[in-house]
Amino acid sequence: MNFNYNLPVNILFGRGKINKVGTETAKYGKKALIVTGKTSTKKSGLLDKTIDLLKKENLGYEVFDKVEQNPLTTTVYEGAEAAKKAGCDVIIGLGGGSVMDAAKSIAFSTKNSGDISEYIFGKKHGDEALPIILVPTTSGTGSEGNCFSVLTNPKTKDKKSLKSNLIYAKASIVDPELMMTMPKSIIASVGFDALAHNIEAYIGKRSNPFTEMQALEGIRLLGENLFKVCNDPTDVEAWEKVTFASTLGGMVIGSSGVGLPHGMEHPASGLKNVVHGKGLAALTPIIIEKSWESDIEKFSKISVLLGGKDASDCSDAVNRFLESIDLNVTLGDLGVVKEDVDWMVENCMKISEPNIQNHPKLFTKEDIREIYLKSL
Amino acid sequence: MNFNYNLPVNILFGRGKINKVGTETAKYGKKALIVTGKTSTKKSGLLDKTIDLLKKENLGYEVFDKVEQNPLTTTVYEGAEAAKKAGCDVIIGLGGGSVMDAAKSIAFSTKNSGDISEYIFGKKHGDEALPIILVPTTSGTGSEGNCFSVLTNPKTKDKKSLKSNLIYAKASIVDPELMMTMPKSIIASVGFDALAHNIEAYIGKRSNPFTEMQALEGIRLLGENLFKVCNDPTDVEAWEKVTFASTLGGMVIGSSGVGLPHGMEHPASGLKNVVHGKGLAALTPIIIEKSWESDIEKFSKISVLLGGKDASDCSDAVNRFLESIDLNVTLGDLGVVKEDVDWMVENCMKISEPNIQNHPKLFTKEDIREIYLKSL
Repeated sequence: MNFNYNLPVNILFGRGKINKVGTETAKYGKKALIVTGKTSTKKSGLLDKTIDLLKKENLGYEVFDKVEQNPLTTTVYEGAEAAKKAGCDVIIGLGGGSVMDAAKSIAFSTKNSGDISEYIFGKKHGDEALPIILVPTTSGTGSEGNCFSVLTNPKTKDKKSLKSNLIYAKASIVDPELMMTMPKSIIASVGFDALAHNIEAYIGKRSNPFTEMQALEGIRLLGENLFKVCNDPTDVEAWEKVTFASTLGGMVIGSSGVGLPHGMEHPASGLKNVVHGKGLAALTPIIIEKSWESDIEKFSKISVLLGGKDASDCSDAVNRFLESIDLNVTLGDLGVVKEDVDWMVENCMKISEPNIQNHPKLFTKEDIREIYLKSL
Repeated sequence: MNFNYNLPVNILFGRGKINKVGTETAKYGKKALIVTGKTSTKKSGLLDKTIDLLKKENLGYEVFDKVEQNPLTTTVYEGAEAAKKAGCDVIIGLGGGSVMDAAKSIAFSTKNSGDISEYIFGKKHGDEALPIILVPTTSGTGSEGNCFSVLTNPKTKDKKSLKSNLIYAKASIVDPELMMTMPKSIIASVGFDALAHNIEAYIGKRSNPFTEMQALEGIRLLGENLFKVCNDPTDVEAWEKVTFASTLGGMVIGSSGVGLPHGMEHPASGLKNVVHGKGLAALTPIIIEKSWESDIEKFSKISVLLGGKDASDCSDAVNRFLESIDLNVTLGDLGVVKEDVDWMVENCMKISEPNIQNHPKLFTKEDIREIYLKSL
């Protein structure tokens, strides 16, 4: 037992907690840049509601609504310019994982100029960032519970996290009711991302008793509830559990990191803009099939929580879980072709070294190529 | 599911982590007031070691070694004066629960003048406090994981917590090896305090999915390991688990509070300077016997983790646990007499209202009197 546990985020969890967004923001600034996506928070009314709540506290605001799926470093620069130009002193991320990640990096880039890739690859370190309030509208990435911001560099196609204590949210408002406006098509994929976080952190070499406890609870809750919200997106009690498990997933990867599934998925979505949770669904069962013997005890626990019997059928249990949420896919289904494999292998070795090292079994470059080929 | 989770403490956990005390302190100040007890950190060499580690970082220091068991508000004033006089800008609490609690209130009182009881009873609120580093040498109170500081007012005998976000430690250095110098006589009593924290927060009305998960893990680890360290204080692996469970106990009461056992014990130790863990040992089984029907599911889980079969024998399971650590006592054994009961009942109603309310079953003043009488 040797670990560091640090989570300086005030997590406000519960139905209706969105009503706190004005008062929480007012603690940290006077004018907010609301970072959001192009459509969903407008359609759902959440953006207008947030603006009303800010106005009630006499806060100014500016809306930056250009965040795309797999957000680009260039979008972050644009957001940081918008924040500076409007004189914003606090950033609100209102949306899914892409939006929250972009909001974190915008808060960072507003205060740290230059190429953000240099910070991502650890060549430079930041000094400060604007305070951040996060409001997730998807339960999957758990970005509200850690200090990661995954960005894609459009020039190099590198998809990699900025990691900095500066980009912990001051407050994360996690309201399960906000998840109920998710398009049905993405519930399963973002939910599987949450499961992958909990699994990868739990089996990771950098796991610790704290994250193990949290990750097992996350796996249990997703095993029992994700299919429920996929079948009936109005099941608010199941949403509470899925949402909590998703925040747990974000927290555990913050301390214990992700492993090979994420390490191999990022090259795929960096190159082909694959939906992240679907990329994980294509890769995870194959990787588990080739990993479970490295930690029989842990893979057994995961298997049992997902309805399997022991470590040897953990991969099958994950496959059955994917069936239950209608997410059995291959990378081929997602547009990845054989000709992409060389680039993905090289890119994986370049950007995902820490994830390869954190995985319980060490895979070589050739192993990774084989997994990509099998996943097509 | 509706909760707030906020724990802005950097927890550094593991054997040998004490070696970080200099570098951690250097992040927050230039001259430290080392708050400690009268003897044990001197005898064990920990005080000298800490001073050496501070010197290595070119930090100044002053030692304040006057903290007693059940620390007094007057001791806190004395410590705050010492900090001001010596120009200290950071406080280190080096010791058990009494020392850590005193250190927190000293950090608070240095910046907030006047009668600390007014802050304790919520009549006044603080603005700031000196940064705090905590180094527990007993595993029991878990003070390193929350923002409570329990003090006794020598005039009124009120024993009650200062609760303020200002007194979270910046860093808590939790080194299981430091527990191995505990006098054997106190291992059981502080360990039972840790168990009581986990139980009371778990069954409390203010429990939440986060604290329930943590508290169950704490109960499990203490059920399996406390008797081991009582029998063999050199069992470092068992110490890791007991220590982790103790920090968990501190964290869960920070969010979810304590219940009737703590609410009834504080009057006893406020009046008669009873050892807190022993007071809890005298009261807890009786209170559980009268409470378990209020939450069959939760008391069953506790019972099973402690070797019982279901909620109906939870009190017996706790009694057997107490036997295993040689801690079966009555308040009578601890010097409390029948004539003290009236005062304790009145004092409990005065200082412990939030704890009475948090307990899963609501006990009246008459019920409380009956429990005190039965515990003699």
